[in-house]
Amino acid sequence: MSIRVACAQIPLSIGDTAGNRTAARIAVEQAARDGAQLVVLPELASSGYVFADRAELATLAETRDGPAIAEWANLAEAFGLTIVAGFPEAAGDAIYNSAAVVDPTGLRGVYRKAHLWDSENAVFDRGDDLPLVLDTAHGRIGVMICYDIEFPEWVRAAALSGADLLCAPVNWPLLPRPEGERPAEMVRALAGAGMNRMPMAVCDRVGVERDQDWVGGSVIIDADGYPMAMAEFGKADVIAADVDLAESRVKRINAHNDVHADRRVDLYRRTALLD
Amino acid sequence: MSIRVACAQIPLSIGDTAGNRTAARIAVEQAARDGAQLVVLPELASSGYVFADRAELATLAETRDGPAIAEWANLAEAFGLTIVAGFPEAAGDAIYNSAAVVDPTGLRGVYRKAHLWDSENAVFDRGDDLPLVLDTAHGRIGVMICYDIEFPEWVRAAALSGADLLCAPVNWPLLPRPEGERPAEMVRALAGAGMNRMPMAVCDRVGVERDQDWVGGSVIIDADGYPMAMAEFGKADVIAADVDLAESRVKRINAHNDVHADRRVDLYRRTALLD
Repeated sequence: MSIRVACAQIPLSIGDTAGNRTAARIAVEQAARDGAQLVVLPELASSGYVFADRAELATLAETRDGPAIAEWANLAEAFGLTIVAGFPEAAGDAIYNSAAVVDPTGLRGVYRKAHLWDSENAVFDRGDDLPLVLDTAHGRIGVMICYDIEFPEWVRAAALSGADLLCAPVNWPLLPRPEGERPAEMVRALAGAGMNRMPMAVCDRVGVERDQDWVGGSVIIDADGYPMAMAEFGKADVIAADVDLAESRVKRINAHNDVHADRRVDLYRRTALLD
Repeated sequence: MSIRVACAQIPLSIGDTAGNRTAARIAVEQAARDGAQLVVLPELASSGYVFADRAELATLAETRDGPAIAEWANLAEAFGLTIVAGFPEAAGDAIYNSAAVVDPTGLRGVYRKAHLWDSENAVFDRGDDLPLVLDTAHGRIGVMICYDIEFPEWVRAAALSGADLLCAPVNWPLLPRPEGERPAEMVRALAGAGMNRMPMAVCDRVGVERDQDWVGGSVIIDADGYPMAMAEFGKADVIAADVDLAESRVKRINAHNDVHADRRVDLYRRTALLD
């Protein structure tokens, strides 16, 4: 089963929730016109990212019945899409860096980021969810957020749970890198997809916020770990590719090897992996 | 502490053990003239790779006191080097795809490949060693072989054991890949180095054997996961770089993050990672 997957690499502005919802809506409409069935939006797509402090974050956080998820659910229903998108989630006294999955039937699930990046640690509560893996109208998808995908244990866990496509809203900060090299985060995503034969849709953002610029490195990756579509670095863009979800069910790569069955769990248990 | 690391991407010929030793010797001498303190040679550097069957492999396998290790130990002593090199190891009735570490004091350790690639499964016995990590005259090095490095659990285990530099003899078979893309194996090596802040020296080979060609993709990788030196694909070459081993002791990447301490072991235990 092949589905058309899009990543909407949109500009976001800290605090402008209405403007951010509009940017997302326009991009989702564009993706839908291009035939997309699943659209990934960036991390914290409703709020922007560079919070001055937790008090500011608190004013931008939303519950699961807030306006961001309502808007995305409306779009999902209107266009017959599944949407994966990041938002700051208010839950009692806690605030999580979360990602929602909505499909034409409404809100399907929420994942709370387990590996917090840099100053997120100062403003967010850390999630204790396992990688979200759920059956949608458009396949069995996994969800995690940004720094999460730099932990190969986490990507492996999603693959072992049967995700056919890993969707990752991200905000990749622009950092120095050697001339001609792809950002290290992208290299890790490519490797994670290939080592698990699990296609991946990574949606980054653009739009400088409080002097913070972003890679703008959205990428859709096939089961072999090669890019099927890549955004132009740093530019607003909607990228799309037809992803064969059946590919992820075939972990075998030759007569003798299977990327999951070849794991030496007997030996891994003797290491410090889970100490 | 910075050490000069070389990878000797040499041509090998199946069955020509004397010729393969000579190719290795010439390359090690060249690396030593260039100031190398640690030299990595390819997987199965003594024998070549494309064995017709186990019977042929058995004629090429050597014990730990065989001519290959004797030659490499002599070179290590003569030039004050540490050498990591692959050889087919005869051990009683078993034959392993092994890698030896020799330094000026002699044979320091042997690692037996735990993840066998393709038809290696038909001719080799599978090793049950953990990743080899040992202190040498030139730093605390880790050793694993080829397909091993495509298992992020294995690379992580070596890093958690304190390896300051992971040395990986490989024979990467040349497979189709999209135009302009690096081989998936190299991408996985780059990711593994960066995600663990553990520099890596991967030594590939050249020389078509029985219609099998090779990537020739040797690469020396820094703690950020970027290439410091890369061989020209498919060409015999000795590459070298000055690797700062102290870098690997710093897993912290900003005020809030540490690539090892950030692992959510509490959550990983709830996944199928070690099932």
